[in-house]
Amino acid sequence: MRNRSRVPKRPLSTAQFHRIEKRARGFFEDARGSHDRGHAERVLQLCLRIGRREGANLDVLRLAAVLHDIGRAREDRSDGVTCHAEAGAAMARRILAKHGIPEKTAEHVVRCIRTHRFRKGGTPATKEAMILFDADKLDSIGAVGIGRAFLFAGEVGARLHNKDIDIRKAKSYSKEDTAYREYHVKLSKIKDRMFTREGKRIAAERHRCMVGFFKRLNREVDGRL
Amino acid sequence: MRNRSRVPKRPLSTAQFHRIEKRARGFFEDARGSHDRGHAERVLQLCLRIGRREGANLDVLRLAAVLHDIGRAREDRSDGVTCHAEAGAAMARRILAKHGIPEKTAEHVVRCIRTHRFRKGGTPATKEAMILFDADKLDSIGAVGIGRAFLFAGEVGARLHNKDIDIRKAKSYSKEDTAYREYHVKLSKIKDRMFTREGKRIAAERHRCMVGFFKRLNREVDGRL
Repeated sequence: MRNRSRVPKRPLSTAQFHRIEKRARGFFEDARGSHDRGHAERVLQLCLRIGRREGANLDVLRLAAVLHDIGRAREDRSDGVTCHAEAGAAMARRILAKHGIPEKTAEHVVRCIRTHRFRKGGTPATKEAMILFDADKLDSIGAVGIGRAFLFAGEVGARLHNKDIDIRKAKSYSKEDTAYREYHVKLSKIKDRMFTREGKRIAAERHRCMVGFFKRLNREVDGRL
Repeated sequence: MRNRSRVPKRPLSTAQFHRIEKRARGFFEDARGSHDRGHAERVLQLCLRIGRREGANLDVLRLAAVLHDIGRAREDRSDGVTCHAEAGAAMARRILAKHGIPEKTAEHVVRCIRTHRFRKGGTPATKEAMILFDADKLDSIGAVGIGRAFLFAGEVGARLHNKDIDIRKAKSYSKEDTAYREYHVKLSKIKDRMFTREGKRIAAERHRCMVGFFKRLNREVDGRL
């Protein structure tokens, strides 16, 4: 893990942050509700909460949080060929330079963005990169995660529920897709992917909320609740 | 309340019911996930559960449940000018006659369908009509209701959440709409609209689930959970 002492101590001014945040928002104007600027705002809150607990560099986290998904529209336009973490990292580098962020801080932020995704872009190597990764994934679980999974199902024209789903057959983004498939295949495993201690704690708690919700949903659908 | 002894005792055969159910399914082929045949199936389960508890005519309930929303596509095509309860009642009458359902039973079913909605179509006047009304509304609350509200938000391109929503300003079906607005304006009031004792009991329990969910969602969004 890189030492955060490598990042210069000159603090990010509030005005500077707000200008960059405003620039970041511009990339979300046509975004779907499941990945709009609300997601970036929630990730920011989680980054600050975990960052304070883990003694991380909050300025790096602030910038990384608001910029981490700015490459998503580009990924969507490319039908998934472009990786939004890679594209977003390059876009963020230009924005940070333009707004006078010192190069070392900017590079730290860029690395956080590049590694915030599963698989692609390498593994998070700094405390701040790990926190961004955890915060981004935490926003997919718990009550927020439940809401996002159903919202996304609605966006792609999928069904409400199918409790007898065959995970191997139902395809993501299809009409037979459901929030329940997403829960089984992805969301239920997130608690085991956390890097930070605080991330693990929040994930375990949010995981329990999802388990209870989907158990309840199945009982309601069976007419037992 | 009409006496169910008016309905002839000749029971509905399983084969007859399946033919009518299959006919009903045909109307949901292009339906959105929030109002697809899954909704009719859940309403059927709820009707049977409440119906057994209330000593109702289960054959009337079975037919009313699977047919109650067959007019929805027509309402959608008319941009809401046609009432799906009214249209569905007329469509159901023709289907029931064609499948050899005795006229008195058919009329009972048709009346249930006509009055299953809020406001339009009059007030449910028989035990079975009240049960269909309750079952239909119960499927909008609880865990199913939460899922449907977010799914619907996704279908109309709305946001995930806005905890500071101004109910007077946010419009239904708009991009600023959210499941939370639907919860405040409509879902939170359903428990007070039930006709049957069992409907009231189920609604109270499902209501508590929603209160807990949205309270939790707001805390998560604030980074407090």
